[in-house]
Amino acid sequence: MVSPKKVGNQTIVFENGPFIISGHTIAGPMEGQGPLAASFDTILKDTYDGEMSWEKTESKMLENAMREVVKKADILLDSVDYILAGDLLNQIISSNFAARQIGVPFIGLYGACSSMALSMAVGSMLIDGGFGSKVICSASSHHETAERQYRLPTEQGNQRAMYAQWTVTGAGSVLLSDSGTGPRVTTATIGRVIDYGETDVNNMGAAMAPAIADTIINHLNDLKRQPDYYDLIVTGDLGSVGLQLLVKLLVKNNVKVADNFNDCGVMIYNTEQDTHAGGSGCGCSALVMAGHILKEIYQGKFKKVLFIGSGSLHSPTSSLQGETIPAIGHAVSIEV
Amino acid sequence: MVSPKKVGNQTIVFENGPFIISGHTIAGPMEGQGPLAASFDTILKDTYDGEMSWEKTESKMLENAMREVVKKADILLDSVDYILAGDLLNQIISSNFAARQIGVPFIGLYGACSSMALSMAVGSMLIDGGFGSKVICSASSHHETAERQYRLPTEQGNQRAMYAQWTVTGAGSVLLSDSGTGPRVTTATIGRVIDYGETDVNNMGAAMAPAIADTIINHLNDLKRQPDYYDLIVTGDLGSVGLQLLVKLLVKNNVKVADNFNDCGVMIYNTEQDTHAGGSGCGCSALVMAGHILKEIYQGKFKKVLFIGSGSLHSPTSSLQGETIPAIGHAVSIEV
Repeated sequence: MVSPKKVGNQTIVFENGPFIISGHTIAGPMEGQGPLAASFDTILKDTYDGEMSWEKTESKMLENAMREVVKKADILLDSVDYILAGDLLNQIISSNFAARQIGVPFIGLYGACSSMALSMAVGSMLIDGGFGSKVICSASSHHETAERQYRLPTEQGNQRAMYAQWTVTGAGSVLLSDSGTGPRVTTATIGRVIDYGETDVNNMGAAMAPAIADTIINHLNDLKRQPDYYDLIVTGDLGSVGLQLLVKLLVKNNVKVADNFNDCGVMIYNTEQDTHAGGSGCGCSALVMAGHILKEIYQGKFKKVLFIGSGSLHSPTSSLQGETIPAIGHAVSIEV
Repeated sequence: MVSPKKVGNQTIVFENGPFIISGHTIAGPMEGQGPLAASFDTILKDTYDGEMSWEKTESKMLENAMREVVKKADILLDSVDYILAGDLLNQIISSNFAARQIGVPFIGLYGACSSMALSMAVGSMLIDGGFGSKVICSASSHHETAERQYRLPTEQGNQRAMYAQWTVTGAGSVLLSDSGTGPRVTTATIGRVIDYGETDVNNMGAAMAPAIADTIINHLNDLKRQPDYYDLIVTGDLGSVGLQLLVKLLVKNNVKVADNFNDCGVMIYNTEQDTHAGGSGCGCSALVMAGHILKEIYQGKFKKVLFIGSGSLHSPTSSLQGETIPAIGHAVSIEV
């Protein structure tokens, strides 16, 4: 049978897409020095924030982002049906331990840096499908926890490649609701795993660009839309190298790329901050989406936004075993 | 607002719960010597199955379980809307690489050993909600990949605790469909993260039992059911130690425990196989559910089954940093 809410190959059109009734962001010190600082609710003074390990700091940030997004919406935690969350750490411990503290039914997701978009896509399905009325969608990353797990401990002070991205320290949450006012999630496009054979784990942008192109092309084709339908088409965290590759891939596929394209990884840091190709990590798009973009939507600057989270689906083990880097892009559209 | 399909605190009642139209299982050599061997579709002759690493073997098992479950249902891969899968490896690489080979839109889940139940719960929501008509739900684990990641490489031949469980080598898939005949997923209870302070990573059963008790109690209360409503109440993989603790917790909470309770970790090995407290790992409940139990349902032996997947949500890093072991239980009921 044909799924009643599916259009084309991959896209869901929500009949009763949830309202995004609040967003909350907690940023690291470096992110708090970037151009979007004014949009973050809390900026940590240091990377530990009083905890004994960076992993504990990351989980606390995520927990606080979950608690605060609910408070901001002026509802009780008891009325939240699900937490959907993911992060980069092995066994997604940041999310697991945050969810333990909150006590709400929990669906753990793994989409690497696409986790924020994935949580919003699945969360919207849970609400539109009638399975819940309030869903917390969250993601986090921490520069120090991610770097030592994926690459090298930051204490070593290793030289980074100029095309490498800087893992963001930050956590963001949005609260989806079946009732309210304001912007709604109107469609979702769940991505396929795409792998063009990139093997350089310092070049996440190149690994992810083909997957994002695939999702954007399918999204537009499924809905018979042109890119100018949206005020903003914002990718998760391709960074400057990945964004250039994405544009090339889209142009090659006859997608009209214009000034309405941007990338969370490009937006989050100033060039003077010396992050090289920009930001990455689940916290990057979580901060930019739940902070900057959501505020711009609330303020009426953007009315139609397409947000495509991008995730690299490798692990250090898979890379050491000679595997290439598979990637995925999940998209949600947000409209007022 | 009240969610139309939610009953009580945590339970979803499906109006159009999906049919489980096929199941497929691929078991490791040791699992193929156990009491459920006859229910597995394929039994590997050795733990490598021709691959250069155990991680590659695990991903290939999972990929094959996904392909074969679709073939068995006599449908085309193109008609499948989503893959929902999870595994134990860092960044769920087994699932990511399997999904890359299949090419179907992919939602990565992390619920540790509860992944099979979690994928069935979320998959049922996607179908009941009208977001898709065919969903592959899968999970896998491999004894050697899990042991070296979580504890010690098996080549060291370390002595194991008598209350430790044996990570199962195996992959299982079920195909959920909006049309068909036979058993349907009728309810789902998404679990909360529960932590009673267990710190011994060799005692997963003790860490998980409280979370499973919580989910079972909430499921029964939400639906105002007694355990005898079900022909079989089967937990994911508590093993013999965890199952005893679960029974104690349930009895303490006035739940009538009878002969209809069992555990996938207890069922999968003979006591002569010297696994100590039984099986564990995502592949354990994936094999027992998609193999043995589904066949018994198809054959009419069971008409009403409650399946509760159990997951420990720690990581080696969280344990080394002194954290206790949080756990979760997700339940689905399957009825003919």
